[in-house]
Amino acid sequence: MNLPSKLIEDAVNEISRLPGIGKKTALRLALHLLKQKESVSEELAKSILALRKEIKYCSTCHNISDAETCSTCNSARRDRKVICVVEDIPDVLAIENTSQYNGLYHVLGGVISPIQGVGPDELHIESLMSRIAKSKDVEKIEEVILALPATMEGDTTSFYITRKLKEFGIKVSTIARGIPIGGELEYTDEITLGRSILSRINYSVD
Amino acid sequence: MNLPSKLIEDAVNEISRLPGIGKKTALRLALHLLKQKESVSEELAKSILALRKEIKYCSTCHNISDAETCSTCNSARRDRKVICVVEDIPDVLAIENTSQYNGLYHVLGGVISPIQGVGPDELHIESLMSRIAKSKDVEKIEEVILALPATMEGDTTSFYITRKLKEFGIKVSTIARGIPIGGELEYTDEITLGRSILSRINYSVD
Repeated sequence: MNLPSKLIEDAVNEISRLPGIGKKTALRLALHLLKQKESVSEELAKSILALRKEIKYCSTCHNISDAETCSTCNSARRDRKVICVVEDIPDVLAIENTSQYNGLYHVLGGVISPIQGVGPDELHIESLMSRIAKSKDVEKIEEVILALPATMEGDTTSFYITRKLKEFGIKVSTIARGIPIGGELEYTDEITLGRSILSRINYSVD
Repeated sequence: MNLPSKLIEDAVNEISRLPGIGKKTALRLALHLLKQKESVSEELAKSILALRKEIKYCSTCHNISDAETCSTCNSARRDRKVICVVEDIPDVLAIENTSQYNGLYHVLGGVISPIQGVGPDELHIESLMSRIAKSKDVEKIEEVILALPATMEGDTTSFYITRKLKEFGIKVSTIARGIPIGGELEYTDEITLGRSILSRINYSVD
C-alpha cells in the first residue's frame, strides 16, 4: 500500500499490529480518526496509555484490578470458600456473565504447554497453593473448580493442579464437558459426544 | 459488560467508538495490548496522536500530505494536464493501486447530499475551479475525470461540477459504469446492466 503521508503510514502500521486488524481496516480506522474531532484521538490514545501503564493485577487472584486487591476478592457478598481456576482474564468475564457463580477466582495466566515452553512455574499455581494453605476459619477454602480449556494443555494443567491439591484434601471439580445447549447429537464431534456419555449424570423426574 | 477495572473499561469504551469495532472486539484488543510490551501501546498511542495533530492536507488537491503540497502534486513525472476528481482520500489510494492513471487528483471531501446537509460550498469545488482557471502553458488542464460514486449523490455532484466546468471548455469525462470484470450478466442488477448497454463502446477485431 502506497500511502501519501508518513504519518498515516505509521498509524496504519501500528494499528495493523493489533490482532485481527489488517492494513485495509487500519487505514479505514485512521481515516475515520482524521474525520473526527481531535479529542476523539486524544481520548483513545490516553486510555490506551493509561491502561497499559496504570493497570494493576490483584495480588490474590491475579485478575486485572484498579487496586492492590480486586473488587471480587474484596467483596463481602462472594462465597469465599470456593475458588474457580481459569486460564486468563476473559474467562473470568465469561463466567461472571453467566451469573451462575458467586465464589472467588484464580487466574493462572496461561496453561501448561511444553510446546510453547510454558511450565508450571510460569503460571500462578504456587500462589494458588499458598492461598489455599493460608485460608482458615469461615474463609477456609472447601472447593476448587477447574474451569480450564478442553484442550490437551488445559487437561494437563487440570491434572497437575489436582495432584498438587491432594495434600489439602479439599474437593476439586471441573466444569462439565458435553454437548452444548441447543446442540444436535448428530453434528457433535465424536470426542465430545463420547465424553458426554461417559460423564452422564443422574436424571430423575419426580 | 461488567469489567473489573475502570482503566480497562475506559479503554474498551474508547476503542469501541471506532467504526466496526464492538465491545467484545475492543476488550480483546485491550487485553492483547496488556500482554504486549509497554512500547507497543506507547507507539500505538503516539502514532494516533501524531496522525491527528500533525497531518496536513495538500493545499492544491486536498489529499493528506506531510507537507504543504503533496508528493503527487509535486511530482514531475505526473501528467499535469489531467485532474481526477474523487470523493475522498481512500479513492485516491484505490485509483493509485490500479497503476492505470498518471495524472493529478482533486479530493472533494464528500459529495453533494441535501439529506445530510452537504451543499457544494462544503466541498472543495471552488478550489477545483480556481485550480483550472489558474493553470496555464504546458500545465494547462485539458481534462477532468469525474471518479465519483455511482450513487444519486455522486451523480448529482458530477452533474454540478460538469455544469460549472462548461465555462472553461475543457474535456470532462466520467469513469465507466458497467458490469465488473469477471461478472456474470444474469447476476448483475438491472440498473447496472441497463446502463452498461446504454454506454456500450465500439468493439472491433483487426
